[in-house]
Amino acid sequence: MGTLAEEIFSYKLGRPVNAGEIVIVDVDHVMSHDTTSPLAIQAFRKLTGERGGRVFDPARAHIVFDHIVPAATVAAATLQRDIRGFAREQGIQILQEGICHQVMPERGFVAPGEIIVGADSHTCTYGALGAFATGMGSTDIGVAYATGRSWFRVPETINVRLTGQLQPGVYVKDVTLELVRRIGVDGANYRALEYSGPLVEALSVSERFTLCNMAIEMGAKTGLVAPDATTEAWLRGRVNRSYPMLQPQNPRYERVVEVDVSELSPLVACPPDVNNVVPVEQVEHIQIDQVFLGTCTNGRLDDLAIAASILRGRTIHPTTRMVVIPASREVYLEALRLGYIETFIQAGASVGTPGCGPCIGRHFGVLGPGERALTTMNRNFTGRMGDPTAEIYLGSPATVAATAITGHITDPRQFLA
Amino acid sequence: MGTLAEEIFSYKLGRPVNAGEIVIVDVDHVMSHDTTSPLAIQAFRKLTGERGGRVFDPARAHIVFDHIVPAATVAAATLQRDIRGFAREQGIQILQEGICHQVMPERGFVAPGEIIVGADSHTCTYGALGAFATGMGSTDIGVAYATGRSWFRVPETINVRLTGQLQPGVYVKDVTLELVRRIGVDGANYRALEYSGPLVEALSVSERFTLCNMAIEMGAKTGLVAPDATTEAWLRGRVNRSYPMLQPQNPRYERVVEVDVSELSPLVACPPDVNNVVPVEQVEHIQIDQVFLGTCTNGRLDDLAIAASILRGRTIHPTTRMVVIPASREVYLEALRLGYIETFIQAGASVGTPGCGPCIGRHFGVLGPGERALTTMNRNFTGRMGDPTAEIYLGSPATVAATAITGHITDPRQFLA
Repeated sequence: MGTLAEEIFSYKLGRPVNAGEIVIVDVDHVMSHDTTSPLAIQAFRKLTGERGGRVFDPARAHIVFDHIVPAATVAAATLQRDIRGFAREQGIQILQEGICHQVMPERGFVAPGEIIVGADSHTCTYGALGAFATGMGSTDIGVAYATGRSWFRVPETINVRLTGQLQPGVYVKDVTLELVRRIGVDGANYRALEYSGPLVEALSVSERFTLCNMAIEMGAKTGLVAPDATTEAWLRGRVNRSYPMLQPQNPRYERVVEVDVSELSPLVACPPDVNNVVPVEQVEHIQIDQVFLGTCTNGRLDDLAIAASILRGRTIHPTTRMVVIPASREVYLEALRLGYIETFIQAGASVGTPGCGPCIGRHFGVLGPGERALTTMNRNFTGRMGDPTAEIYLGSPATVAATAITGHITDPRQFLA
Repeated sequence: MGTLAEEIFSYKLGRPVNAGEIVIVDVDHVMSHDTTSPLAIQAFRKLTGERGGRVFDPARAHIVFDHIVPAATVAAATLQRDIRGFAREQGIQILQEGICHQVMPERGFVAPGEIIVGADSHTCTYGALGAFATGMGSTDIGVAYATGRSWFRVPETINVRLTGQLQPGVYVKDVTLELVRRIGVDGANYRALEYSGPLVEALSVSERFTLCNMAIEMGAKTGLVAPDATTEAWLRGRVNRSYPMLQPQNPRYERVVEVDVSELSPLVACPPDVNNVVPVEQVEHIQIDQVFLGTCTNGRLDDLAIAASILRGRTIHPTTRMVVIPASREVYLEALRLGYIETFIQAGASVGTPGCGPCIGRHFGVLGPGERALTTMNRNFTGRMGDPTAEIYLGSPATVAATAITGHITDPRQFLA
């Protein structure tokens, strides 16, 4: 009897657990990436002794290289060399084939009812598959690598109930921005956000990833969608172990936020906060120097498909650059076979190798002083993509594609067939 | 009556010109890229006054963004923003679609008998089309932007005569390395290298680019191939203006270097000098951390085809990374349609957006301390790809592909069908 978060902790501990309790629990998978692994390894060494220690299970310890790959500086190359040494020593496979939050589920390291901790704030993405997944500091991850366990305060849950039908040109990214607008950037601090309702039931797993990915943008510990037939279909061929299809049972929610999406327009989050959200019509005059399609929020096949359908046969505005980065090698190969990559390149985009790209301002599309970007990212914080005087706007893949064509923020509905 | 270099200068000046003369001549095209433009613009401003000056002809002044694109740092982004401002002011189109030395000929900015100066040492590449093209410092290029003219000491010419037939697994890159081994890194200082002989006549334009590209590695002012039917066929659809098919006329060469290529093995240039060339068999034990296929030397369609034919259905060795960067958008699109890009990605390579990639150690595959790379680049100088303790080996696309599979330097002949 409880919320989905409570049900997962109860299942793992073999006893009923309620929000507010502090528990220590075995975790199923532990993850870090190229920029958080060095500190995690340092914490691991401190706990286990300089060279003697072993990770709890090399098959469930995952290192993904995604943030600055291929290395853009000697410093990054040096850290990556050192991480490779650790991985060799521990028998951990390093995955360099896309963004950690895309690669972890694709590779079958996420299943319903599991607990996953990762040294990246958007680890909450995996809740889309009914797992309890959350980001932690590198030190906590180092401890989890050593012990296979972590401690949690079981979170209270806010139920986000989505109803109605999306209008053409409006996407789950827009719904997610509307949620951040309503709930605020700290309105769900340490809560679990449990997404439900007829709209959520109809969403693809990719769209559910977009929803859960931005739970942290409201301060939430994680985002969750109860697993269903859609989840099972997506997991087929990826996860071979059995998993429990845990569901909320007469849950007591802290509150319920209900949103009828039927009236939503395409939305844009303006700098410097994710909840600074306005209808696209209000910002259409803003000139954009660079658009970026990708990230753990919106770098999947359906996102690329939407953008490609708008860009097909068109070219990017001469004063605007476009960066496209598929979220993973799997996404890249499918996009390639479906002709999307060719469409982007013919339109004039720079298509990068799977990874985080310019989302953290470290390579492949860093912004100069006073430049403006519209991106499918989840964060628009000052200085995130480069110079602190640059501005970051957030929107859907459709809004990004439409803007690439016109050179200023553009309502994608004018490009719908 | 003269070498091809003398014939070109005579044609441009309307009078017979001989090696050793110092001449001032109208140039046909002037080029700089994202890392050399800032100084060229500074020199241009100094010469023409702070804002009043105009470039000699915006249609023949070319700026190509290829070295650090998309921008990898705020500093690069800032410089690129400033260059864009200059280009807008002057009506110059900025091309961001590949390596300058690939984009200039593809876009039709190179024709036989023309004189082209560029702020990049490998501008000599264009001599493959029978143009006199050479790299200059940014200051000289700034002056050329302002005046449309430049001064030259008409160079003496060394004739490189290539005969015989390449064995399977041996390519023009190997011939080029053999030439650097024989002539030395300063053996052709300020000379023109005029390539001729039955082998050269049979080469594609792409292969001729590889030959001429590395003329500067012997200190040469430029490399040249007399234009023929192969040249004309390649230029069709790219160059619409008329051009003279200038040929050497009873030339007096400073010397003739004749090489029968029939006995050549695949070759590798070992660090830290390009003339430190050995047969691949002598270095097969060397472990390689990263291979790189691309650059103005070997990033064209035939280069990618050779590598793809070796990599098809195979995967990269787990301790080796592979970076692939098509030389231009045109090359990328053709490689995509022919399935090469899919082959590289399935093999596990990181495929980058057209440009110089890690060749100058500024992004997308920088080497850490002690790492070793085998690349299709033209230079293996200490520190060029990142940390000064990293080592760079040079070889053909085939040798690079074979090495990607095994993880150590490998004779590509073992992978030939």
